[in-house]
Amino acid sequence: MMFRLLLLALLLAGPASAGESWIVRTDLWGNPAFATLTLESRSGTVSGTLDGDGVTGTADAKTMNFTATDSSGAVTRYRATISGDRMAGRVDAPDTNNPAARAMHDFRAWRVPPRPAGGPRRLAFQPADFSNRWDADRAPVLLLWSGDSVATSTIDSGGVDAAGQTRALFGNPQTGPFFIVGAEPGDTLAVRLLRLTPNRDHADSLDSIVDRALGPRLAAGATTLGKPIRWQIDRAAGIARPIGASGALGGLKLPLRPMLGGLGVAPGFGTPALSTGDTGRFGGNMDWNEVVAGNIVYLPVQQPGALLYLGDAHAAQGDGETSQYGLETSMDVVFAVDLVKGQAIAMPRVESANEIMVLGQAGSLDEALKAATSGMIDWLARDYGLTLAQSGQLLGAAVRYHVVNLAGRSVGIAARIDKALLPRAGGVVSVPLEPVPPIP
Amino acid sequence: MMFRLLLLALLLAGPASAGESWIVRTDLWGNPAFATLTLESRSGTVSGTLDGDGVTGTADAKTMNFTATDSSGAVTRYRATISGDRMAGRVDAPDTNNPAARAMHDFRAWRVPPRPAGGPRRLAFQPADFSNRWDADRAPVLLLWSGDSVATSTIDSGGVDAAGQTRALFGNPQTGPFFIVGAEPGDTLAVRLLRLTPNRDHADSLDSIVDRALGPRLAAGATTLGKPIRWQIDRAAGIARPIGASGALGGLKLPLRPMLGGLGVAPGFGTPALSTGDTGRFGGNMDWNEVVAGNIVYLPVQQPGALLYLGDAHAAQGDGETSQYGLETSMDVVFAVDLVKGQAIAMPRVESANEIMVLGQAGSLDEALKAATSGMIDWLARDYGLTLAQSGQLLGAAVRYHVVNLAGRSVGIAARIDKALLPRAGGVVSVPLEPVPPIP
Amino acid sequence: MMFRLLLLALLLAGPASAGESWIVRTDLWGNPAFATLTLESRSGTVSGTLDGDGVTGTADAKTMNFTATDSSGAVTRYRATISGDRMAGRVDAPDTNNPAARAMHDFRAWRVPPRPAGGPRRLAFQPADFSNRWDADRAPVLLLWSGDSVATSTIDSGGVDAAGQTRALFGNPQTGPFFIVGAEPGDTLAVRLLRLTPNRDHADSLDSIVDRALGPRLAAGATTLGKPIRWQIDRAAGIARPIGASGALGGLKLPLRPMLGGLGVAPGFGTPALSTGDTGRFGGNMDWNEVVAGNIVYLPVQQPGALLYLGDAHAAQGDGETSQYGLETSMDVVFAVDLVKGQAIAMPRVESANEIMVLGQAGSLDEALKAATSGMIDWLARDYGLTLAQSGQLLGAAVRYHVVNLAGRSVGIAARIDKALLPRAGGVVSVPLEPVPPIP
Amino acid sequence: MMFRLLLLALLLAGPASAGESWIVRTDLWGNPAFATLTLESRSGTVSGTLDGDGVTGTADAKTMNFTATDSSGAVTRYRATISGDRMAGRVDAPDTNNPAARAMHDFRAWRVPPRPAGGPRRLAFQPADFSNRWDADRAPVLLLWSGDSVATSTIDSGGVDAAGQTRALFGNPQTGPFFIVGAEPGDTLAVRLLRLTPNRDHADSLDSIVDRALGPRLAAGATTLGKPIRWQIDRAAGIARPIGASGALGGLKLPLRPMLGGLGVAPGFGTPALSTGDTGRFGGNMDWNEVVAGNIVYLPVQQPGALLYLGDAHAAQGDGETSQYGLETSMDVVFAVDLVKGQAIAMPRVESANEIMVLGQAGSLDEALKAATSGMIDWLARDYGLTLAQSGQLLGAAVRYHVVNLAGRSVGIAARIDKALLPRAGGVVSVPLEPVPPIP
Repeated sequence: MMFRLLLLALLLAGPASAGESWIVRTDLWGNPAFATLTLESRSGTVSGTLDGDGVTGTADAKTMNFTATDSSGAVTRYRATISGDRMAGRVDAPDTNNPAARAMHDFRAWRVPPRPAGGPRRLAFQPADFSNRWDADRAPVLLLWSGDSVATSTIDSGGVDAAGQTRALFGNPQTGPFFIVGAEPGDTLAVRLLRLTPNRDHADSLDSIVDRALGPRLAAGATTLGKPIRWQIDRAAGIARPIGASGALGGLKLPLRPMLGGLGVAPGFGTPALSTGDTGRFGGNMDWNEVVAGNIVYLPVQQPGALLYLGDAHAAQGDGETSQYGLETSMDVVFAVDLVKGQAIAMPRVESANEIMVLGQAGSLDEALKAATSGMIDWLARDYGLTLAQSGQLLGAAVRYHVVNLAGRSVGIAARIDKALLPRAGGVVSVPLEPVPPIP
Repeated sequence: MMFRLLLLALLLAGPASAGESWIVRTDLWGNPAFATLTLESRSGTVSGTLDGDGVTGTADAKTMNFTATDSSGAVTRYRATISGDRMAGRVDAPDTNNPAARAMHDFRAWRVPPRPAGGPRRLAFQPADFSNRWDADRAPVLLLWSGDSVATSTIDSGGVDAAGQTRALFGNPQTGPFFIVGAEPGDTLAVRLLRLTPNRDHADSLDSIVDRALGPRLAAGATTLGKPIRWQIDRAAGIARPIGASGALGGLKLPLRPMLGGLGVAPGFGTPALSTGDTGRFGGNMDWNEVVAGNIVYLPVQQPGALLYLGDAHAAQGDGETSQYGLETSMDVVFAVDLVKGQAIAMPRVESANEIMVLGQAGSLDEALKAATSGMIDWLARDYGLTLAQSGQLLGAAVRYHVVNLAGRSVGIAARIDKALLPRAGGVVSVPLEPVPPIP
Repeated sequence: MMFRLLLLALLLAGPASAGESWIVRTDLWGNPAFATLTLESRSGTVSGTLDGDGVTGTADAKTMNFTATDSSGAVTRYRATISGDRMAGRVDAPDTNNPAARAMHDFRAWRVPPRPAGGPRRLAFQPADFSNRWDADRAPVLLLWSGDSVATSTIDSGGVDAAGQTRALFGNPQTGPFFIVGAEPGDTLAVRLLRLTPNRDHADSLDSIVDRALGPRLAAGATTLGKPIRWQIDRAAGIARPIGASGALGGLKLPLRPMLGGLGVAPGFGTPALSTGDTGRFGGNMDWNEVVAGNIVYLPVQQPGALLYLGDAHAAQGDGETSQYGLETSMDVVFAVDLVKGQAIAMPRVESANEIMVLGQAGSLDEALKAATSGMIDWLARDYGLTLAQSGQLLGAAVRYHVVNLAGRSVGIAARIDKALLPRAGGVVSVPLEPVPPIP
Repeated sequence: MMFRLLLLALLLAGPASAGESWIVRTDLWGNPAFATLTLESRSGTVSGTLDGDGVTGTADAKTMNFTATDSSGAVTRYRATISGDRMAGRVDAPDTNNPAARAMHDFRAWRVPPRPAGGPRRLAFQPADFSNRWDADRAPVLLLWSGDSVATSTIDSGGVDAAGQTRALFGNPQTGPFFIVGAEPGDTLAVRLLRLTPNRDHADSLDSIVDRALGPRLAAGATTLGKPIRWQIDRAAGIARPIGASGALGGLKLPLRPMLGGLGVAPGFGTPALSTGDTGRFGGNMDWNEVVAGNIVYLPVQQPGALLYLGDAHAAQGDGETSQYGLETSMDVVFAVDLVKGQAIAMPRVESANEIMVLGQAGSLDEALKAATSGMIDWLARDYGLTLAQSGQLLGAAVRYHVVNLAGRSVGIAARIDKALLPRAGGVVSVPLEPVPPIP
């Protein structure tokens, strides 16, 4: 118990908070770069850090001028005008390719409000619009602090909501982004999926078979595939049935297993916003049928505030989404966020009641499997204390691999280990699973 | 019930059996070719078929001369001397590349005995030697008829038996081959695994990670791996523990799940005998952790008599055998064979109580997955009546893929479908599962 | 000769031009969609087409209202205010997912000027800024007509220009986009590379080996790689030497073969702007060492005006850019554009004096090779009249495959055929190669 | 010059030859194991080595008894009866899995004759039969010493000779094996291809496209492919034409580039004989269109005497043999062998007048490319003195990769470097290329 409280304290600590915190957006020749500025001010001077670099300067009610000095001694100068919780100005930065030159950029920033009193909150959020990009440059819809939970909803991959109305462009439009205060690149965001409930009575799939699943022998017969299939969702019975099916599928009752096909944070600096049809180490359109209620998804934070998006829910889906569509539907979602500070992970992870799982993604299954294995070895080493030799021994005896995604540009394979085979006392197994308060 | 009896009759019918049956081995420039000769004799003349080609000729107690005529009208002449249940002689065959020429070959044959009376038998067989090749040209150790069951044993992949004695060369030496009377290319052999029991108290694995599972990032640290790990097998408790393990693996209790890493029939004509480290559509060193007691393995017959081999048992194994070794040990095995005449399958299958599974094998996981999917679609079409579009729909909603093998030259992925999603009345789900009589 | 003139006429015809042409940008829930509107006006009424759909409406000097009717009869209504060569307004469109509903969007458009008189022009363009995205939503820097040629320049992949000044964010910033009037999705853009000349005396590479090229055996030794290598470019001698090299590379004289690593048109609707580190069927960061002076690159037009970008020049590069960098440098470039109307290609092609080449791109070399082969078969069928069986025969006897790209997210393989093996009279081999006029 | 003579002396030295040499074949539970026994005898005692282990014993005209002691001190005892240049007997060996036990095996051996006087010989050999396996257990057809050259011939992949007669089973039957005296595992065999001449006027190919080259889009149209194509070989003109071709291929004149599809040494211990359709690090059915006259092929010796096979000649072939057949024909072949003692290579290499090339083979192109790159780095390191960083730099600037083989179980990619980029004085570039004496 003692241990648990200590752990909580550690996890919830966040960045040094004596002063204030700003999110800085610099325009680098048309490309946004985000950083976290923390400041303490005293009688007209300010000091602090900008993504770890030391900051000193002066400020009054209307202006702020400061310099950031990096570890090599290079100095970048910021001059800004302040207006309430915003500031905007110019940056004078060294040209890293040319010691004799400097470059001028615009920047702007917004001040992060302090955490509301009273501990973790239960929030409700109804989205008004949706994003077709995993985008670091989209305004947050809500600010969350570690431990907060949110009840929200997603529309289907075609942009259609619970009422059958098109609300966004097709291609997995996402709800969000949610800004998790204190999250910085190098942290891990834990997303606890507390409830996933289809909020309408039908879902749509196809009778397709993606090229990655279909060998040349059957390709000739597959040219007429691709027809839409509508499923009736029976929420009471927990099953779906293809409407109008006959013959061999006439009696099919598919158990529902609602999941989020899309769950991601904003990609990091140097990567433009990506299509919500795409995936990466930031998560994204993983189409992983273990992203279900009861499981925790861990994502590596890439940008200040993480900027969490979610969408593309499926009422059920086989491994790999071989028909290009799962049972696409709109969904009510309740999730909570927890921040694991200073602990980076290389790729998305899921933890269920019984298993730990790591998702490897690549352009081929062969490379994805290597990534998944490496990610699992990292996890076993850090949280359970296994040496590489011990991991080799354990994986050979007990690892499971299942195919996660075949329908996107990258494919995915997950490596899984039964938690019963792991030492209990060996480390921090996961973020603490607090009982979830009822949603307002 | 009626249906079931009819089915049995169909399955057990075997080749036309009014006369007698010989297995013919022709030496084609140093390469053995096997065929099934069925003959009826009447007052000095014989007639019948040789792998489907019509045969006519003459015979007396000591000699037999006959010709086989194929569908194009080409005639091959056989002249043999008979000695008991053996004959040997010369073949005069057309040169298929040169109408003006013919080719002479040696051949020999053995007469297949009639089925013992009394229905399926319970047999015991203790191997005296072992094969390091999946070999169509090795003498059978036992003749079986559809429905027979056998209690036998296997030695470990290093050639070591229950007593710790080396009995064969390392590299997965196999028990067998068992000749299943009536099996011909184009049939399917069903192997019911009735019991798999480790017959000694230790197993051997490695702390390795195969290249196919290890990305470049961790490869540097892996250069010292490859050390042997010995496991204590506690058969009473049903678990294994690594001997001398400490730290994170000090308390590891791995549940036993005994399996056969090797199970295969002889490869077909045109393929020389293959290493027992190799796999193919004939099965082989599949290292599939679903080849366990209670499951049925279906293999495509490639040669007369099928020539079934088994070996390389593991007390437990993760997906893919990532440490190059499972928990290698010697094993007592009870299995039964059933023959599905005239029904070819493209690749190995497993049926468990709840699932049907097809193994795709290839040089990459990407191609193996395509093969597995195609094989599953074949199965769904033939035995359950699904159209290709229906398969597309069902796979998208419910297929599971797991990685089978990463440690061999080919890799394997299995496609799996829950039997609860399939129509019950749609066809012959599997060979009938007779209660197994006690083994003598 | 006659034939050649006719051919030119055909190629240069462009869209029906009796009236005027506008490029329409509709905002679909935050996503831009571009279309080509062609209009003829007569006494207050307008008629024409919008990407092939029939258009009718009314217009005066300040407003235009029109409807577009698609092949299913669905009607979309546009109401706009005109200001010179711009218009802007609202779109009232059917909700394709819900017959009872409609959706409102904003749109704007710009009027395409008529072709300047006097035939193909020789233009010079010096870029002021650069794009880090293959972006359909970036303002064109120059309007070109089929046959026009341009002398311009590119900065290096790190954003550094000929003078050593950083001019853009690293990551292959591109010059452009050039808008080719009359280009529409379904056309092919031919880019003739007339001159590629490094415009400074050094280039930068690395001593890296990308993971895709390095097996696990050598990975352990590769952890210290990644150091920058500067090369001296001797333009007079046509060679490059690594500065400060000693030992085995002390005498290395690498022949220059200047190439564009980046050459692409804007990706099509449904794909957000992509990083200039990325590639696709639109071309992009292909890093193909056959994109050299003297060769023609064919790209499939995806958006109105094609929107051609170029950059990331290399003074020389091995196959696959295995060190992650070629010899990165800034470059003077002269190119010409020709439009092949109504002829779509599936993927980028290059034509040299002696060969035709098709680039397949995918997540693995195995899939890239299939794509390249399919693309070559398409080419052989359409322009040379080969049946699939004839292509099979010719490829087996004479195809060449080389690896194009290993350093990006997708990899590339090119299929190549010697033009001497192809029938000369079989069709339009390529766009006509006019002598290039001197650049002003 | 001096250097060259020294080099020759070194290369031609062979094993210690003061005494005599035997090739020992031990039968290990049905599997042959070969070793080289070198012996000196003095007044009834013998001493020497058996694959490096020390040997001592006694011998008279009829018997020999000796023990071999390995580096761990384990002792194996041999007792044999001698008959001329043969001996045969029993081996009493330790059970490596059980210190308390020993294992008994049969062995036999043949005495290697001394090198004929007079320096390298020019030999002619006409094959009487052919091997369908890369087989260490097949009797040599000819003994060669380093520097010897042989004029011989091969039949086509279907087993058909120059006269159109079927001489062997289809599947790339090979001429050989040639035993190179002194070759031991760990050495490299250099095969200089001096002349390759088709010896008949036709070749056979198919109009197929292998699955590995054909994407799903075109697979539907490819179901009717697979028809035989006969080519007329015009040896005087150096071209081939498809007989009866019309349309786009009516005028096709394909330049001949005769090559050996098959060239391999016997696979090493632990691998049973492999199909001549297969490949490996021992070479085999590489189907590499750089195995042409004028080039040197380097193969890693795996067994005593290397046991060189050759066959499956093609009059010409595209990269990858995408139609499953090259231009299959019979061929006259002149080759010479040179032995590079004590220098192992990991995979086959080819050296032409201008390039060095390494063949990577694997189950996917992605893995084959890694192997090829690693092999090239090995070569650059050993023979040219490049560090790994220098190789990284050079490969990035200048490596070429072409696809070698797509039609077999493994695929191949070759990495190539222009010799003009390599330091001349840096090491032993290759075995010396002696002028070839005229063949008798």
